[in-house]
Amino acid sequence: MEKVCVLGAGSTPYGKLGESLVEMIVGASAGAIEDAGIEPREIGAAYISNVFGIADKQVHLGPVIMSRLGIPERPSLSIESACGSGSVSFREAYANVAAGFYDAVLVTGAEKVTHTGTAWTTTYFAYCSDFFYEGSAGASFPGLFASMARAYMSEYGATEEDFARVAVKNHDNGMLNPKAHLRKKITVDDVLSSAVVASPLKLYDCCPFSDGASSAIVCSERFAKEHGGKYVEVIGSGRGGSPAALQDRKHMTTIDSTRIASEAAYRMAGISPSDVDFAEVHDCFTIAEVVNGEDLGFFEKGKGVEAAREGKTARGGEIPLNPSGGLKSKGHPIGATGVGQVAEAYEQLTGAAGERAVKGAEVGLTHNFGATGASCAVHIFRGA
Amino acid sequence: MEKVCVLGAGSTPYGKLGESLVEMIVGASAGAIEDAGIEPREIGAAYISNVFGIADKQVHLGPVIMSRLGIPERPSLSIESACGSGSVSFREAYANVAAGFYDAVLVTGAEKVTHTGTAWTTTYFAYCSDFFYEGSAGASFPGLFASMARAYMSEYGATEEDFARVAVKNHDNGMLNPKAHLRKKITVDDVLSSAVVASPLKLYDCCPFSDGASSAIVCSERFAKEHGGKYVEVIGSGRGGSPAALQDRKHMTTIDSTRIASEAAYRMAGISPSDVDFAEVHDCFTIAEVVNGEDLGFFEKGKGVEAAREGKTARGGEIPLNPSGGLKSKGHPIGATGVGQVAEAYEQLTGAAGERAVKGAEVGLTHNFGATGASCAVHIFRGA
Repeated sequence: MEKVCVLGAGSTPYGKLGESLVEMIVGASAGAIEDAGIEPREIGAAYISNVFGIADKQVHLGPVIMSRLGIPERPSLSIESACGSGSVSFREAYANVAAGFYDAVLVTGAEKVTHTGTAWTTTYFAYCSDFFYEGSAGASFPGLFASMARAYMSEYGATEEDFARVAVKNHDNGMLNPKAHLRKKITVDDVLSSAVVASPLKLYDCCPFSDGASSAIVCSERFAKEHGGKYVEVIGSGRGGSPAALQDRKHMTTIDSTRIASEAAYRMAGISPSDVDFAEVHDCFTIAEVVNGEDLGFFEKGKGVEAAREGKTARGGEIPLNPSGGLKSKGHPIGATGVGQVAEAYEQLTGAAGERAVKGAEVGLTHNFGATGASCAVHIFRGA
Repeated sequence: MEKVCVLGAGSTPYGKLGESLVEMIVGASAGAIEDAGIEPREIGAAYISNVFGIADKQVHLGPVIMSRLGIPERPSLSIESACGSGSVSFREAYANVAAGFYDAVLVTGAEKVTHTGTAWTTTYFAYCSDFFYEGSAGASFPGLFASMARAYMSEYGATEEDFARVAVKNHDNGMLNPKAHLRKKITVDDVLSSAVVASPLKLYDCCPFSDGASSAIVCSERFAKEHGGKYVEVIGSGRGGSPAALQDRKHMTTIDSTRIASEAAYRMAGISPSDVDFAEVHDCFTIAEVVNGEDLGFFEKGKGVEAAREGKTARGGEIPLNPSGGLKSKGHPIGATGVGQVAEAYEQLTGAAGERAVKGAEVGLTHNFGATGASCAVHIFRGA
């Protein structure tokens, strides 16, 4: 197996964007290519992650992107795993480079949905649930995560204020991220007084619908060294699954896929959760960051809210979660999110994170899942 | 690298089906698992290929399928590369098993679109073109392939009768395939007198819109041997691309991606086209089989129609093309097609093809592409 690295990254801003899906992907990809200091012809293949290309009338994105980049002869494909598409695509790219099939590949994730309006976007997203049991019964994601939040409150005595603190912290981080969708300082009171979406979750407990694209150049260590640019090494990669429908889970307050994927990634990296200096965690709703922080092994079960309350997950804390602002503030263009996390890890570990840098960070983890955690991928990076 | 094998295959019938997309995938997958003589828990991951899950209100298919199969903890993902999705997904599965990431994986492709009606299906499919340059300008696939057909006629003196012979031959083969969508014997006159879709292509030059699912178990040779069932070895795997929009191609009568992918597959297998005993070729339109037959190296440029005219591509001919009936008669559930070709190769090479068996066949090739050949994958199999 080859050692695998990330040699460059690029991103559009996240938000309500005017560009087409293809323009966003080309923009982010060109940014990553330039950041890596390589030529498009050095790219062996492209892994594109996207869920609702049809919303912008373009699926089969790979060849369109390769054509725009001037390398139409190179293979490409699109990968979908709902909101976890980006990390799953990154995993496939990792696997292909590790196995020696390619020296360097382009991984770009993107989504464009805001132009369809909230109703259509909600409908599209519901198709990512186990639609037969969930979406078709009216259980869309706010409701499903609300059930998890209610169960967590009942099991561990957490309060709505506790969840609100996660939102406040991620908005604080997002304020320092020039590409974040929601750059707005908020207070616990703002969260508590925002409109109820699905009790106990209010509007500010939920990430926004975003457009955006993120990109990374994934390559062998040899390729990275030859090119001389800054790179980070992928030291851990893990995947896992959970029952698609929430009703089939053993617990409402544990996400098995997070546990399985992270255990595999830690094992491969030969490290434990306490060796991680920061993590980008899938916080589609505030409750998700709390539960995932526990399932990633950063805190004992039931202690995730305490950690948020005590500032342990803040940028200067014990284990900073979502220094980028996370899905909550940075935004959640679903096909892009997992790749955007990799871009954040790359920037943090190569000294390019500016004001939001986690001081002294050497090891970063990215965690991204689909739906209520039915599919998950975790990666661990070390600065080189 | 591990030697990679196919240990079992399964398929629904292809056609206008009543089952849901999920039911079709579970059916085909369960068939392949049973055919391989393995237990679901022996599957390390699932590679699902699908393009328009939203047409049946279910994307994020992987976890739904894994949950129905009783192995929700295992990773899964969906792969899309338009009409070439199945072969591209198979390629990723191949790469992961070859690299040793998994001992055995499930590869299932599926599509359900016929319930949306011809208009919506045509719209969806047009999103697989380079929509900015093609689909949005009214150039849907019949028109694009008609341009290729017209160029071929002009360049090589081919006639509409020549193309018709391809349809007649594939319907002859499909008559022997109990799972084929169009099991109907047709004549050259039937083709010529069918409605003009996009001149010079008539209705019977076009494959149908189909629903259906196909599945294969892909595993290491060690795993296959331990399980004792019949298996075939993957001896060649290649991928390639062409400019997404037809207008950017150097030639209208050569599909670069087919050439690039097949050359890579032959090189890996250490064989030449003359060593292939039969091929499943992407014949979405009759012209496609002609051009692909040439680009796969079976015939010189311009000689593809002569081969059809002389019966060289018939089941008993020199190089039988599409013994299954091909997309033309067997049908074209776009996410399933590439996996269905693998299922056909498996059945042909393990003595399970019944009446449509290619006698004495030892080496089979599958060729499947997306759109007008923008993305392509070719695989070569040898009976074990």
